[in-house]
Amino acid sequence: MYKESLLQPGERIDDLLTHQLTIIQSRDVFSFSMDAVLLARFAGVPMRGRVLDLCTGNGVVPLLLTTRTQASIDAVEIQPRLADMAKRSVAMNGLQDRIHIHEADLREYYKQSGHGGYDAITVNPPYLPAHNGDKNENTHYAMARHELNGSLEEIVAACAKLVRTGGRVSMVHRPSRFVEIVDTMRRYKLEPKRVRFVHPRVEAEANIVLIEAMRDAKPDVKLLPPLIVYNEEKQYNKEIMEIYYGGRASLSEG
Amino acid sequence: MYKESLLQPGERIDDLLTHQLTIIQSRDVFSFSMDAVLLARFAGVPMRGRVLDLCTGNGVVPLLLTTRTQASIDAVEIQPRLADMAKRSVAMNGLQDRIHIHEADLREYYKQSGHGGYDAITVNPPYLPAHNGDKNENTHYAMARHELNGSLEEIVAACAKLVRTGGRVSMVHRPSRFVEIVDTMRRYKLEPKRVRFVHPRVEAEANIVLIEAMRDAKPDVKLLPPLIVYNEEKQYNKEIMEIYYGGRASLSEG
Repeated sequence: MYKESLLQPGERIDDLLTHQLTIIQSRDVFSFSMDAVLLARFAGVPMRGRVLDLCTGNGVVPLLLTTRTQASIDAVEIQPRLADMAKRSVAMNGLQDRIHIHEADLREYYKQSGHGGYDAITVNPPYLPAHNGDKNENTHYAMARHELNGSLEEIVAACAKLVRTGGRVSMVHRPSRFVEIVDTMRRYKLEPKRVRFVHPRVEAEANIVLIEAMRDAKPDVKLLPPLIVYNEEKQYNKEIMEIYYGGRASLSEG
Repeated sequence: MYKESLLQPGERIDDLLTHQLTIIQSRDVFSFSMDAVLLARFAGVPMRGRVLDLCTGNGVVPLLLTTRTQASIDAVEIQPRLADMAKRSVAMNGLQDRIHIHEADLREYYKQSGHGGYDAITVNPPYLPAHNGDKNENTHYAMARHELNGSLEEIVAACAKLVRTGGRVSMVHRPSRFVEIVDTMRRYKLEPKRVRFVHPRVEAEANIVLIEAMRDAKPDVKLLPPLIVYNEEKQYNKEIMEIYYGGRASLSEG
């Protein structure tokens, strides 16, 4: 099969730079960011069992997770266009047996999956509240950036409903909302256990935060070493190079 | 006056390494740590107005704060021995007009000071819950390390009562309790606004966290650059050198 036969007009195939994985992207919709790559490396996932990715977009997180786990991976995306791209990317990589893309509303997904069925959940939600929307954005971009299909609280509530006791929920978000995230997670019995802040440079404020919480766990959080993106020579730091090109290494070992 | 005339048996005079400040210490009681020095540099304090330091111990934080503000500084310590040492250190430095040490229980202090009278509060509380106590510790060390004279929640409640609306509360603590601190602060209407994690080395987990909250503020927190204590040559990083020897520089500018 020619990979290109899977493409719709305006789409392209990008290389995920590890394990020969590729992904379908398009300028018309939000492309995956470093945030998703970091989440896929940071998240605590079991070697077997069931993993779920919410707000999966074009499916970059489940694709990358296949390099770290043999678990069965479900992924949920509400936008038909993105869910379709994700399905085709899964097919393009021959991963139909390991990744299942569901076009669904994460707030309703428990109706088909049941409660507490997942060992681990990953989520890269929109970062901005709904009311901050730029009226000129196209719908795909707006949905990726703004909480139009679920507020932070609704997303956390969905995670709490879908993960088993002792299971892990990993989220990437902006540090400015960190306090709100922690507060919301705890109200839904998701106890933050590992946190890592990402700083563009060692002397810069954090611009990304990675949080892993455990369902029904006791309070006790580890603040992992800061992840510094660029070194003093303005090049990617060694760890970022390993994350992008290094395959299996997990951020948790950083 | 000879400084030594202020000393009790077993006490010594240590140099605070900045602005010719000195402090009375003793092996019999808890000596000040880097944590207190970092807090004194990190805390947002107004140039004028009223500042309060809780759990002041031998008074290191108010002494160091005099290099950053002209405010009137009150400081509260429950242990008579430490409060007395702090008073003598204030006298030794000729700062009786600017620092007032109160031997008091921080939970009751509002009865003498009234509500909401402070523009800024600093606090370096004991880090361990009461029940973790080592029975063999002497009482002074136990009180410095364990929440024997006020739980985290009681300390936060006291801060919320004593600071004015829009005033700042700065705390140093262990990262393992960060989530609990943030949660407790928010319940008492202290909104975390600036957070800085301190890592011994860039590749190490954080072992100290500095948090500044504002009374009745809106949620929106800044994650400041990580403060790295030792460089790759195992020497103090430049910023730590500046904090210890550099005088006025504030961590907030870091």
